[in-house]
Amino acid sequence: MINIIVNGCNGAMGQVLCNEIINNEEMNIIAGVDRNPNKLDNPFSVYQSILNVDDICDVIIDFSNPSHLNDLLEYSQDKKVPLVIATTGYSEEELIKIENSSETVPIFLSSNMSLGVNVLLSMVRKAANILSSSFDIEIIEKHHNKKVDAPSGTALMIANTINDELDNTKDFVYGRYTKKDKRQPKEVGIHAIRGGNIVGEHTVIFAGDDEVVEIKHTANSKKIFAKGSLEAAQYIINQKPGLYTMDNLLNK
Amino acid sequence: MINIIVNGCNGAMGQVLCNEIINNEEMNIIAGVDRNPNKLDNPFSVYQSILNVDDICDVIIDFSNPSHLNDLLEYSQDKKVPLVIATTGYSEEELIKIENSSETVPIFLSSNMSLGVNVLLSMVRKAANILSSSFDIEIIEKHHNKKVDAPSGTALMIANTINDELDNTKDFVYGRYTKKDKRQPKEVGIHAIRGGNIVGEHTVIFAGDDEVVEIKHTANSKKIFAKGSLEAAQYIINQKPGLYTMDNLLNK
Amino acid sequence: MINIIVNGCNGAMGQVLCNEIINNEEMNIIAGVDRNPNKLDNPFSVYQSILNVDDICDVIIDFSNPSHLNDLLEYSQDKKVPLVIATTGYSEEELIKIENSSETVPIFLSSNMSLGVNVLLSMVRKAANILSSSFDIEIIEKHHNKKVDAPSGTALMIANTINDELDNTKDFVYGRYTKKDKRQPKEVGIHAIRGGNIVGEHTVIFAGDDEVVEIKHTANSKKIFAKGSLEAAQYIINQKPGLYTMDNLLNK
Amino acid sequence: MINIIVNGCNGAMGQVLCNEIINNEEMNIIAGVDRNPNKLDNPFSVYQSILNVDDICDVIIDFSNPSHLNDLLEYSQDKKVPLVIATTGYSEEELIKIENSSETVPIFLSSNMSLGVNVLLSMVRKAANILSSSFDIEIIEKHHNKKVDAPSGTALMIANTINDELDNTKDFVYGRYTKKDKRQPKEVGIHAIRGGNIVGEHTVIFAGDDEVVEIKHTANSKKIFAKGSLEAAQYIINQKPGLYTMDNLLNK
Repeated sequence: MINIIVNGCNGAMGQVLCNEIINNEEMNIIAGVDRNPNKLDNPFSVYQSILNVDDICDVIIDFSNPSHLNDLLEYSQDKKVPLVIATTGYSEEELIKIENSSETVPIFLSSNMSLGVNVLLSMVRKAANILSSSFDIEIIEKHHNKKVDAPSGTALMIANTINDELDNTKDFVYGRYTKKDKRQPKEVGIHAIRGGNIVGEHTVIFAGDDEVVEIKHTANSKKIFAKGSLEAAQYIINQKPGLYTMDNLLNK
Repeated sequence: MINIIVNGCNGAMGQVLCNEIINNEEMNIIAGVDRNPNKLDNPFSVYQSILNVDDICDVIIDFSNPSHLNDLLEYSQDKKVPLVIATTGYSEEELIKIENSSETVPIFLSSNMSLGVNVLLSMVRKAANILSSSFDIEIIEKHHNKKVDAPSGTALMIANTINDELDNTKDFVYGRYTKKDKRQPKEVGIHAIRGGNIVGEHTVIFAGDDEVVEIKHTANSKKIFAKGSLEAAQYIINQKPGLYTMDNLLNK
Repeated sequence: MINIIVNGCNGAMGQVLCNEIINNEEMNIIAGVDRNPNKLDNPFSVYQSILNVDDICDVIIDFSNPSHLNDLLEYSQDKKVPLVIATTGYSEEELIKIENSSETVPIFLSSNMSLGVNVLLSMVRKAANILSSSFDIEIIEKHHNKKVDAPSGTALMIANTINDELDNTKDFVYGRYTKKDKRQPKEVGIHAIRGGNIVGEHTVIFAGDDEVVEIKHTANSKKIFAKGSLEAAQYIINQKPGLYTMDNLLNK
Repeated sequence: MINIIVNGCNGAMGQVLCNEIINNEEMNIIAGVDRNPNKLDNPFSVYQSILNVDDICDVIIDFSNPSHLNDLLEYSQDKKVPLVIATTGYSEEELIKIENSSETVPIFLSSNMSLGVNVLLSMVRKAANILSSSFDIEIIEKHHNKKVDAPSGTALMIANTINDELDNTKDFVYGRYTKKDKRQPKEVGIHAIRGGNIVGEHTVIFAGDDEVVEIKHTANSKKIFAKGSLEAAQYIINQKPGLYTMDNLLNK
């Protein structure tokens, strides 16, 4: 039985994660943490700060926001508990803090916990390397009509991964409207389709002469992020101190 | 045997059309017309103006440009020859001239001669009518990296068809880049993907709650426009004077 | 407020429907009917037979099975209550009974209540008519790995619709494995992909010379069938006696 | 300038290759070889056997059939000329001959010369490794209605690559028709769509719980195989003796 503290348990993703753990016979929520501890009626104790938790756990999973980082790292360091961080939006400074803490405890950090998205990223990196000299790269993403940011964080993550792989030689283009301008080879077009309640689709297109290679990921539920974080938790409780990412998990 | 005058025979589409006719045992090119009559070596006579052609034909197919309209209509009226016009970019005034001429001879006018694109348009009209109150509409088109206009003329034709059907209640959006703006119901996103030597793809997406309907057309060769114009030619030689479109052909 | 009897309320689709009604402020479940009335804890009364229900309702929605047809029709006739039948698998004889009853009360009958699937069917009918002489037709459907029938009922409904439209000239083929046999023009290939927990996708392909037209429906939840049946209910309570289908609703 | 002998120059693929070389300013056809040397009018000398060729070349590209293997290897050994073999259908014994010859001259061997298909294979191998324990794998391929074999050789190559990677734990299924049988986890469904003049599409689907990963290759012309063989030729003329495959080229 793996005992887990869920940090950010009353957020949307936190609740999805809690449900997955409750339905998993080999896992248990020892405590939840949320800045609004009484917001929801959970079948486990919820604390306002992780520093108030006395129970002993095997791993912490964090789906909160950057403001909780200091408490999170302090608790993890003190109790020598491995940490899975799924929160996004950290500053450079905060990322250095995380890296420093990982010298003492194993920390798993990923801005997208989906197994499928990470397999896509890994394949895109390979394809970009081999094909980029003679193929044009474009990204299409589709999400629901309530989404306020476009392109999606994942689409930008894919685009940045491509640019990392290709020595930052690509420029991102967010839509096209012209009567006389051809596409430049250095462009990566990123297209944000919005409609209905589509959960999330990302397609990377490599278009060459007479052939096209496409890599597509379709998400049908936020559960995939919860499941990925639980795979990360199972992986990291057996590791030595260090900073781990999805690449470590996928290539284990 | 159908005897045809090809107006604009030395242009890219004109040549594709000539090849289709030459390979068709029931059709014959009686004469070609092109402002550069000696540009290419054709197996038929080519004249600089259609007014110089003396041969008798059954139908004229025009893949040229609006500047030749007056000669074209004059010849067609004089000789009482049916006319298939595949040229695009006419002004309002020119369209009225065409309509007036169609009182005397049958004229077939379409800005896209592909059978498949016209079936797509017809289906999009139906779907827009039934679904638009609760589904969001988006258009994705893909073309080769040499194309200078974005979105494609066909994508705009699809969007305008939707707007005609929905009493001009839709606004077109050509790409999205935002951190805080949700999609508005009146938006129709039009997304132009460019890469490799893709001949042409158009997808219309109707995204609703928990379901998505998509209609897609893929063109693999410009031949489809030539073939469609030949179907139009075969159709119109048996019609009474009047202005005909692909709708007449599809619902015959 | 529309008062509804849900026949088959404790089945999987019945429960989805009840949830939709409960979340709809303009609708109310006046009673449920199920052969296992105590199987679930519902916030409304559940009877073992519809003949035991005394409450007055505006419309009955039936997601049960053919064995309940006699009671259903008897109740509907006696009380003069319009009826929406979403149950499938009726015999010829049972369909005649339904038709006869529709002389007295309005009855809405459809084997697929999704708005999107019915729009697809309507578009497929149009495309089959126009394109079938020179385009090959194939159907691909995708469902979860727990599904016991292949192809899906909806895929067969699409194939039968095509065959109705084309005077039964097509033969269905369920997979291909050969070293020497070309496709025959009369074939309609029907391909059943199974994997993961895909809710349901149906794509109809019209493949011609140098162009392909595709019509695709993606379902992300069973809710679409519940929603469609509620649209049918709202439509039929204002109709005269008669037998109605999705075509009536879509072309209203 | 790279001087090339094209073995099988009068076959369909041979002609596509010759056209590519003629249009390439850095390459030259020094001689063609074909069992029907006078079948076509080529702008280079064509011999009935490669053993009759006296000209000195930098590399031989072979798009013929297994019956020419002995002559091909003899010539390559005698003249110490690198060899690109794109012919398929060799027996085990013939493959051993090729391997033995590669101890003396560099030989590049691939049953599919398309860069894109080989990138797809490489990505499928990676995805199969990471995802196969919890994702179902299915393959869809689409080709023109004249193709006599189903599934395509490339689809079978993909399926065999998956099985190699997964220790032969998968069974191939070529279509599904059942009323009561669920998909088994060990199945890989392979679905052959046929229609129109589609050049070739291959999609590999990894379907998991709430997410799907798809990898797709679209070929629009046979030219991609010619181009790939020319990339292989450019690569191999600089290599030491040995047997090389697309993996060597992709990971160079």
